[in-house]
Amino acid sequence: MNPSMIPASREDAAALDATDPLQAYHDHFDLPEGVVYLDGNSLGPPPRASLNKLRDTAEREWKDQLIASWNDAGWIDLPKKCGAKIASLIGAAPDDVLVCDSVSVNIFKLVSALYLARKAVSEPCAIAYETDEFPTDGYILQGLAKLTGTSLKKIASNGPDAAFADGIKIVVKSVVHYKSAAITDIAAWERAAEKNDAVIVWDLSHATGVIALNMQRVGARYGVGCGYKYLNGGPGAPAFIYVAKKAAEELDQPLSGWMGHAAPFDFADGYLPAPGVKRFACGTPPILSLSALDGALDVFDGIDMHAVEEKAKKLGDLFLARAMALDLTSASPGLDKQRGGHVSLRFGHSYEVVQALIAKGVIGDFRQPDIMRFGFSPLFLTYTQVWDAVDILGNILATEEWRKPEFAIRRTVT
Amino acid sequence: MNPSMIPASREDAAALDATDPLQAYHDHFDLPEGVVYLDGNSLGPPPRASLNKLRDTAEREWKDQLIASWNDAGWIDLPKKCGAKIASLIGAAPDDVLVCDSVSVNIFKLVSALYLARKAVSEPCAIAYETDEFPTDGYILQGLAKLTGTSLKKIASNGPDAAFADGIKIVVKSVVHYKSAAITDIAAWERAAEKNDAVIVWDLSHATGVIALNMQRVGARYGVGCGYKYLNGGPGAPAFIYVAKKAAEELDQPLSGWMGHAAPFDFADGYLPAPGVKRFACGTPPILSLSALDGALDVFDGIDMHAVEEKAKKLGDLFLARAMALDLTSASPGLDKQRGGHVSLRFGHSYEVVQALIAKGVIGDFRQPDIMRFGFSPLFLTYTQVWDAVDILGNILATEEWRKPEFAIRRTVT
Repeated sequence: MNPSMIPASREDAAALDATDPLQAYHDHFDLPEGVVYLDGNSLGPPPRASLNKLRDTAEREWKDQLIASWNDAGWIDLPKKCGAKIASLIGAAPDDVLVCDSVSVNIFKLVSALYLARKAVSEPCAIAYETDEFPTDGYILQGLAKLTGTSLKKIASNGPDAAFADGIKIVVKSVVHYKSAAITDIAAWERAAEKNDAVIVWDLSHATGVIALNMQRVGARYGVGCGYKYLNGGPGAPAFIYVAKKAAEELDQPLSGWMGHAAPFDFADGYLPAPGVKRFACGTPPILSLSALDGALDVFDGIDMHAVEEKAKKLGDLFLARAMALDLTSASPGLDKQRGGHVSLRFGHSYEVVQALIAKGVIGDFRQPDIMRFGFSPLFLTYTQVWDAVDILGNILATEEWRKPEFAIRRTVT
Repeated sequence: MNPSMIPASREDAAALDATDPLQAYHDHFDLPEGVVYLDGNSLGPPPRASLNKLRDTAEREWKDQLIASWNDAGWIDLPKKCGAKIASLIGAAPDDVLVCDSVSVNIFKLVSALYLARKAVSEPCAIAYETDEFPTDGYILQGLAKLTGTSLKKIASNGPDAAFADGIKIVVKSVVHYKSAAITDIAAWERAAEKNDAVIVWDLSHATGVIALNMQRVGARYGVGCGYKYLNGGPGAPAFIYVAKKAAEELDQPLSGWMGHAAPFDFADGYLPAPGVKRFACGTPPILSLSALDGALDVFDGIDMHAVEEKAKKLGDLFLARAMALDLTSASPGLDKQRGGHVSLRFGHSYEVVQALIAKGVIGDFRQPDIMRFGFSPLFLTYTQVWDAVDILGNILATEEWRKPEFAIRRTVT
């Protein structure tokens, strides 16, 4: 935002809170006292509706209704039901999104299906991902390339025009970068892809639930994304897959498990894909995790995603502007640029600073090699919380409290 | 069992209950009043420990500890922790089993990894599954064959000696058949496979938690299985994958997501598989579903799987002997044969009879085209319950109550 609009005092921040159009959403969450949770971009906290739904699924539907709940409680339709809720957040048609498996598995399904479609018409087809992409996206493509013998390339982060050289026909790319939070111009990339007879699989993990997306309008037909970040669907919540209707009918995905069959309970011998995106289902879905996501998604019912995006940007701007005043280096787009829901700062001892912050109740995370990353989920954070978080960060840096030996102890998950 | 040992009266059945060495296990479950649950082979009911663990994971670890639970609550290690618990039930080394994804996805990983290992040494390699195998196993192999161009064959159910003709080098086969409950002689199949330089991926879905298995002793190195049947891990509970240690080190699986990386939080560019079976992990695991499974597995701690298998067989024998007296046709091995935890009967109107049984609280399921299937989970069923279930079945057949129109209404999940 315009630097002059950034709160210059804690009172200014409180004034923004008082007129925050999203303030009613805070009531959906019961965050622990004294915690400023700047890690909703990594694991969203539980909305009350999610915990309630999960408890009902486990302690009534499973315990009392047992197997009948596959029909009576609609378990069998949960992947499509949750998909429709996510569709409304990403600008997809309601029946073009399915919740299933993990982002990693869904990338494999979608890219291999697109690869098979090319192969069927004997078109050479290299697949590619961008340097510095979230690692699992690259790892999955490495696995697929090994299995199929197709060519795998890496492309530089130079924008769309040079991206489709060397016979590259399928690109996996994030909409919001997991480190920097830079937002990709989807429409520009789709135009470049079309010009080169190529397709893009969008990784929406760090975008869904925090920025306003309209996949249909920008011509994006393929996407995957995450349920456990801004959607608050629970740790390791099932992921989603988006395939535009017409495109789905032309694709056969090789992880063709029974739940993607047109009639799974016919127990037919040959695989026959279900219509549309449902063919991207594979095995039996984890209903308990899925029900927690289902409940969490209800919080987004009727939400204005433009208001969500705007508040995320303003919270991030407030944090970034004050962090710059502490002489920290930003690894994210600046105040005048588009940016997703998080802000990354570079510092030689980021790991230790993040641990020191956590000890004081300000929870962010560390990303290799020297990034401290802070997420600004607009549904439960206030401007004053973000104001206070920077005060605490400033204090830790000024006193060099991060040098305490306990903050150097490495943990498995960072 | 010996037909003379089958209870001849409800009093005899009650006498078996009184001396049942597994009767203490009933206390782990709170089944609804008036229900005889003969569908634990499809969806196990919740052990109290499972519901408690799930509630704690959601309402304390997730809600109060948030992201820190990946380390502090050990979420990151749950796939191996649950794997070790399952390993003790299937006779595998504790660190040779990992809980992850679905059976379908795990079959894909394991067969494609074995295929790649053959391809690396330029050996021709056909993959195969048996006629009448559980459909998803065949569907997944159809998808893999399409993606890789490898040859896919179906083998007749004629035992192991003829199974490895035609260059078949990888076979997927169930240990307990999903319809008949026939038990495969794993050792004999492994000997035949070895003679033909082939390998077998065992589908343990209908075997785990109900029959005594010793994968190591019978020379079986590869397996997958289900968490939501006899393990009672919850609807769509994550599945497991078993790969013997030495074998795992030689395999690269192509669903190489970040959780299978040797150091996922290094965010390195190139994929480097973790040691052992952990390389078969892919995306972020669904922790809520995983924690329900974790709690459910505690019920099996220290259990005598031979006693479990014996009781399952005796319950099944009791049911089968009395069903034969109703002039029903068995689709399962007889009293004098080895049989897994369920019994299938053939009847022209099986679908309707199953619905009529459910209406009277006896819950089994229907399998195409004419099978009614009943499971005998030994941890919560009594001999008198099984006695009573056959009385109810007999009454429904005698009165032709199944002809009521409401029992013909087809449901999505059967």
